[in-house]
Amino acid sequence: MASSTESNTRPIRLADIAKAAGVSHGTASNVFSRPEIVREEVRERVKAAAEALGYAGPDPKGRLLRAGKVNAIGVATTEPLAYFFDDPFARAMMAGISEACDATGAGIALVSAGNQEKLAWNIQSALVDGFILFCIEGGPRLVELTRERKLPFVALELGSEDDTVSAIGVDNVVGARMAARHLAELGHRRFAVLSLALADGRTGLVTPEQVRSAVYTGTRDRYAGYFEELSRFGVDTASVPVFETENDEAGTRAGLETVFASAEPPTAILAMSDRIAMIAIEWLKARGLSVPGDVSIVGFDGVPDAALCDPALTTIAQPIAEIGRRAARTILDFDGTVRRETLGVELVVRASSGPPPKTA
Amino acid sequence: MASSTESNTRPIRLADIAKAAGVSHGTASNVFSRPEIVREEVRERVKAAAEALGYAGPDPKGRLLRAGKVNAIGVATTEPLAYFFDDPFARAMMAGISEACDATGAGIALVSAGNQEKLAWNIQSALVDGFILFCIEGGPRLVELTRERKLPFVALELGSEDDTVSAIGVDNVVGARMAARHLAELGHRRFAVLSLALADGRTGLVTPEQVRSAVYTGTRDRYAGYFEELSRFGVDTASVPVFETENDEAGTRAGLETVFASAEPPTAILAMSDRIAMIAIEWLKARGLSVPGDVSIVGFDGVPDAALCDPALTTIAQPIAEIGRRAARTILDFDGTVRRETLGVELVVRASSGPPPKTA
Repeated sequence: MASSTESNTRPIRLADIAKAAGVSHGTASNVFSRPEIVREEVRERVKAAAEALGYAGPDPKGRLLRAGKVNAIGVATTEPLAYFFDDPFARAMMAGISEACDATGAGIALVSAGNQEKLAWNIQSALVDGFILFCIEGGPRLVELTRERKLPFVALELGSEDDTVSAIGVDNVVGARMAARHLAELGHRRFAVLSLALADGRTGLVTPEQVRSAVYTGTRDRYAGYFEELSRFGVDTASVPVFETENDEAGTRAGLETVFASAEPPTAILAMSDRIAMIAIEWLKARGLSVPGDVSIVGFDGVPDAALCDPALTTIAQPIAEIGRRAARTILDFDGTVRRETLGVELVVRASSGPPPKTA
Repeated sequence: MASSTESNTRPIRLADIAKAAGVSHGTASNVFSRPEIVREEVRERVKAAAEALGYAGPDPKGRLLRAGKVNAIGVATTEPLAYFFDDPFARAMMAGISEACDATGAGIALVSAGNQEKLAWNIQSALVDGFILFCIEGGPRLVELTRERKLPFVALELGSEDDTVSAIGVDNVVGARMAARHLAELGHRRFAVLSLALADGRTGLVTPEQVRSAVYTGTRDRYAGYFEELSRFGVDTASVPVFETENDEAGTRAGLETVFASAEPPTAILAMSDRIAMIAIEWLKARGLSVPGDVSIVGFDGVPDAALCDPALTTIAQPIAEIGRRAARTILDFDGTVRRETLGVELVVRASSGPPPKTA
């Protein structure tokens, strides 16, 4: 603690104000924290005393040291802060987190970094009571840094097999199987997978070895679900191209270029995020290909925008806002126990999936 | 300060760790704040010492007291926190603020309250270096509370005539004139205005007296711009209905019900936000009215979604993200001066505006 560096100063304290105004310490405190419960005459008297003595109101730093509680949740990602406002999945999650915070008056501190150096610093310096970790990418490093803070935290991804870590998410294998089964039952047999990252900083066609050594277990689980189900329908999964992206426009377009350069292009695309799926729909339309006439697409996430794109996206819907609400409550009501929750997913059939073209 | 309440405890300090590990205080500090510049062998030795002594890393509360800087901007609104992720204007603004913060590694603390009691508390307890105030509604109260913190702050609205307050925004009179002129030049003479709030908590038809006593000067300025320009085209502005909303669905629909119950319904709607305009488009389409065949609409803001609705919205575009970036830099680079900046607006003509119907 820095008390020694502060000992030479003698700041005006709330007690000084209370004395000068002739009110109790509690009343003076209420004037600053809950003014509406103090009579106006008293309120004005206390404020006049504060003004005269040059008191700036209760110092949140002082209150912080006394109470130990900040009344804020840190939400951390390795993406830039803009991710929270640009990405449809992040936005839906933040809406759920916000709702739970609004219910108790807690604030949200957004913690981010474009590089590893700043990430460490920002996690270490965030003034919060606990963290929610967006573990889509960079998860292991985020968990490691957060653990050092010795504050409660919850990962928004069940990928981690480490059951000492609280986590809330969905069963990715089950969701991926639903997506693959839907397309296979429509008659598709020629597939491509547009994948989220299996490890950091890669874009390109994926080898079976890379899948086995996946860092991101959520991605690996979706991959496993797709292939288990396709095998059941007799698809030779060794011949299905899997293109790894960073959930971005450039990577998705590169994947589509690669996959559609084939002599036998796919009639069905399994996209591991709605974002990838929506970028793919735009790319296919620009190429003059009909969705779903020529190519069907199924996304993953169930973001609100997926219902509005043209054609509307068939997808595996996660209860995104509910995951966010539960994650926030895990921090706000922290009781020292590890919580690991798996919420259900559902197949939402819209216009982007249909039977394969007759010529295929 | 709370130093007296802390004096009985004897927390493990970084100095203890440095001594136990046989390194300098600076090296021990670097292990926690900039680990990448410390050799791995030294890093591991210091971490082992920290683990053995039960040291949880440098306490951000202690660092806060020493440095005085939190490395975070508070963004405050009287809306619930969910507003930052749901509202298209707020999202675009936050994207700009995030971008400026990402560039320097600063965090963002979202500060909100559904009621006045919590708002006061949250503003007073936020651990930030300064505030950006979303002054769309509740602006005067927000400014008053923030001023008491004696930290730099900037209002995202030029409405305030108080030039001791830093503010960034657009010239609302000029923007509103552009919108009205565009519709008048297309031939419209029967108008309705769907207005943002002139004062808190009201919905309904507005009297000239209410406009004169407007609390929200940004709203008043848009109103003034509309009517100045319509008068130039010979429109009797006393006969133009103005319906006040809280920028919400219920208020906008109530306004449309009222305005279209008239014997001479409008052929043109001036909407004070894109959100109001987009709700109006949906309402009109559901009523079987064509936009712009029967009714033209011009919005205000230029949010990204306005380009995507059907028909795409003609609007007055503010440089929203640039306003956000400048607001963030005003706090991050605070030099003690009051900054008041007016940025330019532009008319963006899309599909929601056209000539009035021949029968009108």
